Amino acid sequence: MNDKITRLNTTQGDFDSALAKLLAWDDSVDHQVNESVRHILRDVKTRGDAAVLEFTEKFDRLKVGSMAELEMGQERLQEALERIPQDQRVALEKAAERVRGYHERQNQKSWQYQDEDGTILGQKVTPLDRAGLYVPGGKAAYPSSVLMNAIPAKVAGVAEVIMVVPTPDGVVNDMVLAAAAIAGVDRVFTIGGAQAVAALAYGTETVPSVDKIVGPGNIFVATAKREVFGVVGIDMIAGPSEILVICDGKTDPDWIAMDLFSQAEHDEQAQSILVSSDADFLDAVEASINKLLPTMEREDIIRTSMLGRGALIKVADLKEAAEVSNRIAPEHLELSVEDPQAMLDDIRHAGAIFMGRYTAEALGDYCAGPNHVLPTSGTARFSSPLGVYDFQKRSSLIGFTPEGADRMGRVASVLARGEGLTAHARSAEYRIKD
Amino acid sequence: MNDKITRLNTTQGDFDSALAKLLAWDDSVDHQVNESVRHILRDVKTRGDAAVLEFTEKFDRLKVGSMAELEMGQERLQEALERIPQDQRVALEKAAERVRGYHERQNQKSWQYQDEDGTILGQKVTPLDRAGLYVPGGKAAYPSSVLMNAIPAKVAGVAEVIMVVPTPDGVVNDMVLAAAAIAGVDRVFTIGGAQAVAALAYGTETVPSVDKIVGPGNIFVATAKREVFGVVGIDMIAGPSEILVICDGKTDPDWIAMDLFSQAEHDEQAQSILVSSDADFLDAVEASINKLLPTMEREDIIRTSMLGRGALIKVADLKEAAEVSNRIAPEHLELSVEDPQAMLDDIRHAGAIFMGRYTAEALGDYCAGPNHVLPTSGTARFSSPLGVYDFQKRSSLIGFTPEGADRMGRVASVLARGEGLTAHARSAEYRIKD
Repeated sequence: MNDKITRLNTTQGDFDSALAKLLAWDDSVDHQVNESVRHILRDVKTRGDAAVLEFTEKFDRLKVGSMAELEMGQERLQEALERIPQDQRVALEKAAERVRGYHERQNQKSWQYQDEDGTILGQKVTPLDRAGLYVPGGKAAYPSSVLMNAIPAKVAGVAEVIMVVPTPDGVVNDMVLAAAAIAGVDRVFTIGGAQAVAALAYGTETVPSVDKIVGPGNIFVATAKREVFGVVGIDMIAGPSEILVICDGKTDPDWIAMDLFSQAEHDEQAQSILVSSDADFLDAVEASINKLLPTMEREDIIRTSMLGRGALIKVADLKEAAEVSNRIAPEHLELSVEDPQAMLDDIRHAGAIFMGRYTAEALGDYCAGPNHVLPTSGTARFSSPLGVYDFQKRSSLIGFTPEGADRMGRVASVLARGEGLTAHARSAEYRIKD
Repeated sequence: MNDKITRLNTTQGDFDSALAKLLAWDDSVDHQVNESVRHILRDVKTRGDAAVLEFTEKFDRLKVGSMAELEMGQERLQEALERIPQDQRVALEKAAERVRGYHERQNQKSWQYQDEDGTILGQKVTPLDRAGLYVPGGKAAYPSSVLMNAIPAKVAGVAEVIMVVPTPDGVVNDMVLAAAAIAGVDRVFTIGGAQAVAALAYGTETVPSVDKIVGPGNIFVATAKREVFGVVGIDMIAGPSEILVICDGKTDPDWIAMDLFSQAEHDEQAQSILVSSDADFLDAVEASINKLLPTMEREDIIRTSMLGRGALIKVADLKEAAEVSNRIAPEHLELSVEDPQAMLDDIRHAGAIFMGRYTAEALGDYCAGPNHVLPTSGTARFSSPLGVYDFQKRSSLIGFTPEGADRMGRVASVLARGEGLTAHARSAEYRIKD
């Protein structure tokens, strides 16, 4: 491991390749994990509840008589909501309210219009019938993640949100259950791993099959989601979390150091990068990093992440900073500058953009309103934050009058015959007037 | 193979399992194809143009000196446009105009708003920088498919649409090139197979890497797209085409038979199903099928498809017809009934809905306006037609005032500490006023 944070400068001759090396992340598939996951999927698909019970006993060391014992009723969620400290409950409710308010603006409406022939064209928007939400158990159990995944589904109009959360050795996280209560989760099963993904995808005697599975998970969960894609929809497979901070050198360096830490503390593979045109400021932030690091609860994780994958990048100006950012297409982008709106036009790819010195990325993780499930590893080039649109789908609407069918039938006939598809042509021609 | 079309009735005791059996479609992965595709992807990723040239020589029997010879300039596309028969050109232009008009209504706008603290929240919509469009060569080369894939990308604002189309033995389809000219495709390379997908995903010395790859292809292309998913975005992996016709028994049975044929002629695995509450009408359509089949150019394909995967289903009424349709979640749904709008509320899952007796599905394939790239194999439960939204992505916008950061920092702090993420908490707390 490096003993200092990587420094790059866009003027260095090998900047492009050095940046590429910094960003490189190995997401190659582990074939042993693959085999194991496929076995679990097949087994649950074939044997249903019995297989889920066996895997839960094996992996979570939970022995129960029937799947019914692995379902938690609404009264258990309410119990958790009443048991957690009052300030946590208030914070969860406030966060939920803001997340709901933002996501309501994403709601899509069906539309129809008529063209000059009276032809009806349109798009009908329908929520998914049922969504599955995977929530990791144990130490990485994040109640905020329950809100961020379940609320968009409910805002979209999904009738039934089914949550699965493993409780290894029976350990339950009350804050997670409280968040489920607040978010309006409909059913909760305390199962996890590939067996939970399989149960949601194929359905069992007890667990209903869903139309889409969302939510974070370990390598077994991610692999299982990838495998069942097609049978059900899935959200993106997430890579390690990243933040890119662009700073004009006028924000308190301690603030910036802590913002970088807030990604780095997620895990050793997380990536925190600072870009500035002010070389002295980069030095000041490095000094802050060295000063603050020993005071951090998750010091070891942060150090490994900062030294292994972090970087301080010197650029010529904010314009060039935006170019570097577009190259990276970061999950989180902080514009810690005087006039962030002025930079927006230059920013083409980012999961979420945090504008101005007061907008700590951590606020977005919890309670700003927008979703914290964001595209990682450069996939912001082509994908979006989790949203209401992920829980709705569209159907095209087409309705021809006899006149429209006559006019358009002639066009379709020519093209269909040009493609050698004569049943298409004749089907259209039946509707042409003599 | 059956010697008669399958008949089902919702009153039969085993209807559910019989329907499930009818719909079952084996999309299991061929491991030999997988291995071969992985080899091609790795090779193109490592060796770029040289590897693409070798595979093109091997699979398409095309030997050229350099990749530059495999690019077709705009003048070649214009030449094709001028060479095709006038009626085909007019039909393509008319279709393109309608497809463009419909898709322009799908364009999404960025938005921002301020909450009571002055906090800015919003969503910035940005087109992808570059999209790749795969077009099959040989007998399955469909100019309509070029329009349907390229136009939404251009309407979305994608700066560069790169089309790849194999020309085995040098055979070029002028109508495909003409469609590319009309749709505004920016660059065309005459390469195909997994090597073309690899070139688009990773980029080579000559072919620029894209952000998303769309378009149909054979098993090698589909497998390659699945493999590069994550490096780039992809559209859905399509299964065989399907149509479900719901008819009240008052449409000419010949029309309905031909509508069923228009799916069946695509390939032997295509699925055409008719649902009606009128048993006599089902008999009449079967008679039409038997009468018309011998007159069809693609008789053998249609027969195999109709006998192997087609069905005539008797239901109690239109309400039950909608239920059967929701269970199938068809790619194409024809509502060949008196009042199709009245049925819309009951239809939850369908790629495209064709309303009324005059709306032949074939019109939608070519020139109605909506896209003909639609979710197959029941995936309309959770996915949508190809659209402008597939070529745009969203970035969340968050901008806190000092007051907003103060208020929300307190909420974030409680939640972050509840999750044991103290760098998150301290980053938020820096922005809290004393």
